[in-house]
Amino acid sequence: MDISSLSQINPPPRLLMGPGPINADPRVLRAMSSQLIGQYDPAMTDYMNQVMALYRGVFATQNQWTLLVDGTSRAGIEAILVSTIRPGDKVLVPVFGRFGHLLCEIARRCRAEVHTIEVPWGEVFRPEQIEEAIKKVKPRLLLTVQGDTSTTMLQPLEQLGEICRRHGVLLYTDATASLAGNPLETDAWGIDAVSAGMQKCLCGPSGTSPITLSDRIVDQIRKRKCVEEGIRTAQHQQGDEEMIYSNYFDLGMVLDYWGPERLNHHTEATSALFGAYEAARLILEEGLEAGIARHKLHGDAVLKGVHAMGLQVFGDIQHKMNNVLGVYIPSGVVGDEVRHLMLNDFGIEIGTSFGPLHGKVWRIGTMGYNARKSCVMQTLTALEAVLNHVGFKTVQGAALQAAWDHYQASGAHA
Amino acid sequence: MDISSLSQINPPPRLLMGPGPINADPRVLRAMSSQLIGQYDPAMTDYMNQVMALYRGVFATQNQWTLLVDGTSRAGIEAILVSTIRPGDKVLVPVFGRFGHLLCEIARRCRAEVHTIEVPWGEVFRPEQIEEAIKKVKPRLLLTVQGDTSTTMLQPLEQLGEICRRHGVLLYTDATASLAGNPLETDAWGIDAVSAGMQKCLCGPSGTSPITLSDRIVDQIRKRKCVEEGIRTAQHQQGDEEMIYSNYFDLGMVLDYWGPERLNHHTEATSALFGAYEAARLILEEGLEAGIARHKLHGDAVLKGVHAMGLQVFGDIQHKMNNVLGVYIPSGVVGDEVRHLMLNDFGIEIGTSFGPLHGKVWRIGTMGYNARKSCVMQTLTALEAVLNHVGFKTVQGAALQAAWDHYQASGAHA
Repeated sequence: MDISSLSQINPPPRLLMGPGPINADPRVLRAMSSQLIGQYDPAMTDYMNQVMALYRGVFATQNQWTLLVDGTSRAGIEAILVSTIRPGDKVLVPVFGRFGHLLCEIARRCRAEVHTIEVPWGEVFRPEQIEEAIKKVKPRLLLTVQGDTSTTMLQPLEQLGEICRRHGVLLYTDATASLAGNPLETDAWGIDAVSAGMQKCLCGPSGTSPITLSDRIVDQIRKRKCVEEGIRTAQHQQGDEEMIYSNYFDLGMVLDYWGPERLNHHTEATSALFGAYEAARLILEEGLEAGIARHKLHGDAVLKGVHAMGLQVFGDIQHKMNNVLGVYIPSGVVGDEVRHLMLNDFGIEIGTSFGPLHGKVWRIGTMGYNARKSCVMQTLTALEAVLNHVGFKTVQGAALQAAWDHYQASGAHA
Repeated sequence: MDISSLSQINPPPRLLMGPGPINADPRVLRAMSSQLIGQYDPAMTDYMNQVMALYRGVFATQNQWTLLVDGTSRAGIEAILVSTIRPGDKVLVPVFGRFGHLLCEIARRCRAEVHTIEVPWGEVFRPEQIEEAIKKVKPRLLLTVQGDTSTTMLQPLEQLGEICRRHGVLLYTDATASLAGNPLETDAWGIDAVSAGMQKCLCGPSGTSPITLSDRIVDQIRKRKCVEEGIRTAQHQQGDEEMIYSNYFDLGMVLDYWGPERLNHHTEATSALFGAYEAARLILEEGLEAGIARHKLHGDAVLKGVHAMGLQVFGDIQHKMNNVLGVYIPSGVVGDEVRHLMLNDFGIEIGTSFGPLHGKVWRIGTMGYNARKSCVMQTLTALEAVLNHVGFKTVQGAALQAAWDHYQASGAHA
C-alpha cells in the first residue's frame, strides 16, 4: 500500500439502519472534537463527576458508582465480570442469542463454573424458568442480556431482581443494545450491575462503556482490592487468591480513579468522555421516557411498513426490542444482493444476521439519532424499490402508506 | 447535582505542557468528528487496512500484525501481556520508574513469576546488566519500558533484541510515551511487541492503543487460539490450560477481526480509529525522522531555558527523553503553588511527579502538537514570571534568550 497517497478521513455518507453502530448525533461528534484538558484539571474532574450524574439519570439509578469503562461495550461487560467473578464461582446465564453466549465465554475466561439455560432464538425466558434454574444451580451471579440484537428480542427483567435477592444472587445485565431505547429501571428492578455501549440508542460512537454498580456488588468488588504495584506496601505484595485477573478492568482501581481519592490508573479517554457526556445530556434533555417512546414509535413504523410490503418478521413480536426488527428474507431473494443494492445505490445500510439466522433474516434498526421519521421513510422506500428490482413484487407505496397511517394514528407529525 | 443545568462541552483553553495528555492536533480532532460508517462497510475495512499500513511506518516495522487495541495505552500493554504470558511463565522487568512497576503489576495479574532488576530513579540500565539478569532468571519474556515519564528517562533498546534472541527470550517494550518523539526501530532492534498510546507524541486523545507484533510472538499467541463461544464447536468447549484470561484482550481474536477473516469481535471504536489514522498520516507526512528531530529541538530549548533560569534538572540528562524534562523545584518554592498559578493565570499546565519525586520535581513536556516554538516560549516566560512572583529570582529574560540562542544555533526559525 502506498501510504503517501492517503488523504484525510472522508467516509462515504451512509444512513446506518442496521443493528448498530448507527449514525452518531452530530452534537456528540462535535463535543468529541473539543480540545483536550489535563487529567486532573479541575475542569476535567468536574466533567467526570457530571458524567456520573448524567448516567445515573440514563440508568434510572441512585448508584454512586456510575461511570465509564474506557473500551467498547464488551470492555464494560468484561470489567464487571472479571471484577466480580472469583475462579470457581457458579454463574447462571439464560441464553437467548449470541450475546448470551458471549457472557458465557467471558465468564469461562474468568474461570467461572458456567451453567446455562436456553430457549430457541426468537424467544425469551419467563421469570419462573429462570427462578427454577437458580434453585437448581445456586449460582453466585445471574448474567443476563436485556436486548440481544442477534435475535432482536428483549428479555423482561422486571421480576428478576426480586427473585435474585430472595436467593442471594447478584444480578448483572448487558444493556448494550437496549439502554435508552427500551425501559430499564436499574434501582426499581433491583439490578446490581448494568453495562452499556454508545453505538446503539445512546447516539455515539463505540469506544466507551457506561456502567452502574449497586453498593451490594461494590462491596464484593472491594473485597478484592489491590493497590497498584508502584504504591503498594510490602504486606500487600503477595498474591491474594481472589486477586482480579486484570489491571485495566480492576473496577476497584477504576472506582478509586473516579472517586474522591483520584488514584492514578489509566489516562481517561477524554474525547470519548466528552461524547458520552453530550449523549447523556441530550437523552435527558429530551426526557428518557420520551426518547423510549420515540424508539417505539419509529420501530413500530418499520414493523407496519415491512408487513405492508408483504414481508414476514422474525421472532416473538410481543417481546421484540423497540429499536431493531428481524425481517425474513423472502424465498427466491438473495439477502446480500439486497443489502449491497441498498448500500451502494441508496447509501443505506441494513444488517445481516449471525449463526442460525445467517442468510435468513435481515435486521433493520431504528435507534438513537436514526429513530427519526425521515430515516424510516427513506429505508422503506429504498427497500421497496430494491425488492421490486430483484423480482419480489410489492403493492406500490403500501409500505409508505402504512407508515404514514401509523404516524398519523400516533399523532406524530414531526 | 442539578443535571438539567448542564450545558454543552466547553473545556477551558489550556496549553498542556506536562507529561501528557497534551493538546491534540486539531486535524486529529476534526477527523474524529467525521460521521460513522458500518463495521463491515468496505470503506471501514479499507480504513482498518490503511491504519495497519500507517502504523507500520510509525513503528518502523514490516510486521503484518500492526493494529489498534480499543482502550487507553495500558489496554495495549495488558492485551500483549495477557495474550503472551502463560500462568507460571517467568518474566524479567528492568524497573527504572513507575511504568516498570506497572508492567510487574500486570504480569502478576497474568500469574507470571515476576523478576525485577532496579536502578535508582533518574538512571537507565546498561545492556550488560540486563543480559546478566537474563542469564540468571532465564525468563520467557523481557518486559521493558522505553520512555518512563515518571523519571523522564529513555532506556536504550538497540542491543536488547540481539541479546534476547541469543537467549531465546521474547522482547516487549512499552513505547506509550516515547513513540514518534524518540527513535524506535522495531524491526532493526529485534523487538517482538511494542505498544503505544495516542496522548503523548502521537498528537491524539487517549482512547486507542497502537500495537505491533512480530511473527515470532504471534506464533506463541496463536497457540492459545480460542474461537468465541457462539461459533465454537463441541470439541473446543473444554478449557485449554493456556486459555487467555480475557476475551476483550485476546489478541488471537483481535487479529482475526483485523485480518482477512474479519471474525466478529468488538465493534471497532470508529472515531478513535479515525483519529489514530490521521495522527499517523500527519507524522509520516512530516517524516518520522523530522518529527523526532523536532521533539529534540524543542525539548533542548526547554532544557536550555530552564538552566538559564537557574533551575536544576533531574536525572541522567544523557538519557533523557526528547519530549519531557524533570525540573527540581527550588528550595523555598511550593511546587503546587507554581503549578496552580501557571494553570489559573496563564492557562498552562505543567506536571507534578509520582512516588519518590513527588513534591520535588516538576515535569515539563514538549511533545506532539505542542513540540512547537511558541509553546516553549510561552511556557518559559510564564514560568519565569511565576517563579519571580513567588520569590525565586531569575535574571530577567535569560531563559528566553537561551531558547532564542538555541533556535538560532540550530538554524530553526520556524
